[in-house]
Amino acid sequence: MAEARAAEPVVSRLAIVGLGLIGSSIARGARQFGLCRSIVAIDRDEAVRARVRDLGLADSVTGDAAEGVENADLVILCVPVGAAGAVAQALHGHMKPGSVLSDVGSVKGAVVAAVTPHLSEGVAFVPAHPVAGTEYSGPDAGFSTLFSGRWCILTPPEGADEAAVERVRALWQGLGAIVETMSAEHHDLVLAITSHVPHLIAYNIVGTAADLETVTQSEVIKFSAGGFRDFTRIAASDPTMWRDVFLNNKDAVLEMLGRFNEDLAALARAIRWGDGDALHDLFTRTRAIRRGIVALGQETAEPDFGRARPAPEPHESR
Amino acid sequence: MAEARAAEPVVSRLAIVGLGLIGSSIARGARQFGLCRSIVAIDRDEAVRARVRDLGLADSVTGDAAEGVENADLVILCVPVGAAGAVAQALHGHMKPGSVLSDVGSVKGAVVAAVTPHLSEGVAFVPAHPVAGTEYSGPDAGFSTLFSGRWCILTPPEGADEAAVERVRALWQGLGAIVETMSAEHHDLVLAITSHVPHLIAYNIVGTAADLETVTQSEVIKFSAGGFRDFTRIAASDPTMWRDVFLNNKDAVLEMLGRFNEDLAALARAIRWGDGDALHDLFTRTRAIRRGIVALGQETAEPDFGRARPAPEPHESR
Repeated sequence: MAEARAAEPVVSRLAIVGLGLIGSSIARGARQFGLCRSIVAIDRDEAVRARVRDLGLADSVTGDAAEGVENADLVILCVPVGAAGAVAQALHGHMKPGSVLSDVGSVKGAVVAAVTPHLSEGVAFVPAHPVAGTEYSGPDAGFSTLFSGRWCILTPPEGADEAAVERVRALWQGLGAIVETMSAEHHDLVLAITSHVPHLIAYNIVGTAADLETVTQSEVIKFSAGGFRDFTRIAASDPTMWRDVFLNNKDAVLEMLGRFNEDLAALARAIRWGDGDALHDLFTRTRAIRRGIVALGQETAEPDFGRARPAPEPHESR
Repeated sequence: MAEARAAEPVVSRLAIVGLGLIGSSIARGARQFGLCRSIVAIDRDEAVRARVRDLGLADSVTGDAAEGVENADLVILCVPVGAAGAVAQALHGHMKPGSVLSDVGSVKGAVVAAVTPHLSEGVAFVPAHPVAGTEYSGPDAGFSTLFSGRWCILTPPEGADEAAVERVRALWQGLGAIVETMSAEHHDLVLAITSHVPHLIAYNIVGTAADLETVTQSEVIKFSAGGFRDFTRIAASDPTMWRDVFLNNKDAVLEMLGRFNEDLAALARAIRWGDGDALHDLFTRTRAIRRGIVALGQETAEPDFGRARPAPEPHESR
């Protein structure tokens, strides 16, 4: 289907550094949709490299980043944001002039600051962030349609090379994403509220529940269908990736968390003083945002994400 | 399938007061699985009654609760917990001796306190709470398998009539639920952490996001796939039901919220001071709870609830 329709590849040689969920999904999609002529997979973890070879995700696989990027036209860093600076430093002087460096980090300001000093002469850096993912990690977790219909945010610095930006944009559009451009600072603020703080409070409540003495862990698990289990999905996301996100987007996360806390204090006060109208007003207002997300195709309209209607087996065995 | 296997009905005449998501799901399931001989649907809302007639969910439909329950063997209150007392009062003297009153409220202590004074002579009250639901409301939202494989908690008072408890247990087992018994007080504590506080913080963050000046609502919606959208599902739940839950389980909710806040303050401090190990430790620990929920069949193991792999259409139209 899509392969047959792909015209010119976006780049000739694509190098992907870090073959986790995102990196391996880019590799699968780039090949399936004909976005490049060859792929080099670079990962410092030998077990990951072995798996990438078994899965046949790339044309060549190496643990040596400097060697791997040598003939690449586009290099995408798919490593935790805390590692981006060190990888960029290792690539210094090894990328060819006219090539483009990009990344997929969930934080942009800190990555730009960490990567920019190490850029080689003639190499453009076009930071990117595909807003997509699952709670699973590693090269087996990726799939070619992960980015389909999802947004990818580019944060090119002032005066960025237009051709380089277009190359990165074309790659993401080829992967099925909708590309939008904004400043790194604004990106970090938007993602703090739409992604980082939600992950933080999900991790937090799952931790709180695990530590209770009055309610057993077995009870938490059994009765999770009352709402809790939705939080556990994102609280199962990659720990290293998320540690780095919070450490590298500290200011925006703490600012948004401060607002969340103020609002939560007001809600707690409404509960304590029995202000049912304040609660009902908020609970009515929040339904509109959900409708907007469903209308924009970013969510299924199926009740309970479609998981509410179980397979018939439980009834067969009644 | 299941119909063919249903032996004796659990009760002869079943009365359901309130035909929303839960009430209409009980009606559908009770009929489909042969759990009663006839169903009377009672709802004070004329539009709901009309819809129940159109959908053919009951053998008779009335707005008069006192009249509707007259020949019922089992009456189930499926109204917001704040309305349980008033409905019980309206039923006083109208239920037949030997019949059983039950409910489905998400709060048990307050419902027991509100309903018990109005019980008719010879009527047993067996409070119940099926831990299941979706973000949709009303008689159209229900379906017969909503409770399949989910837990239903009974909180019979000390010295409750054993036959009455068994009747309610048999109904829920017939609907596919796994029945567990505990005290009303313990129920309210368990549900505060597994359901009520998760809903509260979901409502809260969606409200916080809607009120930002620096990030537009359109941005929140577009980039919601980063985690936020999971919260919007439960923040789209019925406002009246949830207002009543918080007002009627105030103490347990505020206690659990206090713990959540303490833990969140510690996390915020770890972020501010760059304590990556503390973050990584928590983020690793929380994965185990998720695995327990999936292992117990209370959640799908599919990445992203199975919604991560979109239909092929977006690619077809590339």
